Amino acid sequence: MISNKWTKLIKSLHLKKHRKAEQLFFVEGEKAVLELLQSDWPVVALFATESFLSAHGVHSQRADLLQSCSSSELERVGTFSSNDAALAVVRIPQRSFSPPAPHEWVLVLDSINDPGNLGTIIRIADWYGIRHILCSEDTADAFNPKVIAAAKGSFLRVQLHYQPLVPLLEHAARPVYGAYLGGESVHQLALAAPGGYLVLGNEANGISAAVGQHISRKVTIPAFGQAESLNVGIACAIICDNLRRLSGA
Amino acid sequence: MISNKWTKLIKSLHLKKHRKAEQLFFVEGEKAVLELLQSDWPVVALFATESFLSAHGVHSQRADLLQSCSSSELERVGTFSSNDAALAVVRIPQRSFSPPAPHEWVLVLDSINDPGNLGTIIRIADWYGIRHILCSEDTADAFNPKVIAAAKGSFLRVQLHYQPLVPLLEHAARPVYGAYLGGESVHQLALAAPGGYLVLGNEANGISAAVGQHISRKVTIPAFGQAESLNVGIACAIICDNLRRLSGA
Repeated sequence: MISNKWTKLIKSLHLKKHRKAEQLFFVEGEKAVLELLQSDWPVVALFATESFLSAHGVHSQRADLLQSCSSSELERVGTFSSNDAALAVVRIPQRSFSPPAPHEWVLVLDSINDPGNLGTIIRIADWYGIRHILCSEDTADAFNPKVIAAAKGSFLRVQLHYQPLVPLLEHAARPVYGAYLGGESVHQLALAAPGGYLVLGNEANGISAAVGQHISRKVTIPAFGQAESLNVGIACAIICDNLRRLSGA
Repeated sequence: MISNKWTKLIKSLHLKKHRKAEQLFFVEGEKAVLELLQSDWPVVALFATESFLSAHGVHSQRADLLQSCSSSELERVGTFSSNDAALAVVRIPQRSFSPPAPHEWVLVLDSINDPGNLGTIIRIADWYGIRHILCSEDTADAFNPKVIAAAKGSFLRVQLHYQPLVPLLEHAARPVYGAYLGGESVHQLALAAPGGYLVLGNEANGISAAVGQHISRKVTIPAFGQAESLNVGIACAIICDNLRRLSGA
């Protein structure tokens, strides 16, 4: 059973202000919780169905509190309409961003609003071995339940850092690529060196003028048909794929 | 005002069986309706706010019925939580699939369930100039309101054809590529000729065994990190981008 105290706490964590105040967030669903349990992230409480616990033999030491409950309780406190597995309350890790290694790619998100898009971008970053994402302070919150759901476990491996982008980019020692309509084709790009920053802009307005001033190369996905634009998650995937292909590692 | 008769009809079109019986579907929102009105698709009825009509000077001949209404009426009959523009009821076009030109790319969807994924794939096809998508009969319906919303006007330019896939693929005169984990890297691919079929499989189960028997080349997006998989829409975009880059047109 999930006590009233925990019910209230988990429900409060649907909102960013409470996640920030408590420094906690939650992870839902079988696959994501299993990946979480295999990581070294501190699990404050794990609520799980008997069938999840017996199928996966969870160690009681893995969480400060381990409590069995019903699927309807999981659905009541969380955001999934169907969850017959588990929900974990997790401490938000404290991390700082240090300058990346020269060959590393780093994503820079300038006001990505949609949590689904942010989660998708985290998953793509993980696919392409990108470990750090810098986010403008108005980008969707990394620990929003919709972001965690869309990121599919990749939130464990990709670190998001929220900070003003201009001060960082104006001192960038490496190339800063920006996704635009009407830049150099990513099919024809020649990279000066592997690694750098890739900036992606807001869903409706693209990269802001202030951030745009610090882009050293505008890149574009060549179009062959008539669609006006691509979703930012799709654009991120295609550009990352080309950059990885070109930097050859 | 939207009459009771039209309210009832539009609400019924949320469901596939009624779309099929009536041979009608609907399009919502400013951008998609504007793109629709610029096309030659037959609009049976257009319901729009006064501000939409005066901003865009819609000709009354463009729809059999043109009716002004409030945004709350649009929201009541449609699926958008917010729509201060328009909703159009449209006749489903009758089209048949003829063998594609040799250099053409054709997408083949083997049981794509999620309407959002299907809409995304339609938009990607349009970006890459792919005009035809063949769908297994259990793929999400092309005229589902969520598909139309995710396709962002691209549904006007990309034709979907529902039919059994095996009879088609077993007589295919051109290469049949299939998206798999563990095939040839799309970064290293050499194409025998430009054009062919690209098969994408179900979100959970991939390409079915029956369809898989007719794949001539298994292709894969190379991974550089630890994410287990990519969403099917993302995978479609990356593979299309590579095929277009390699076929050079």
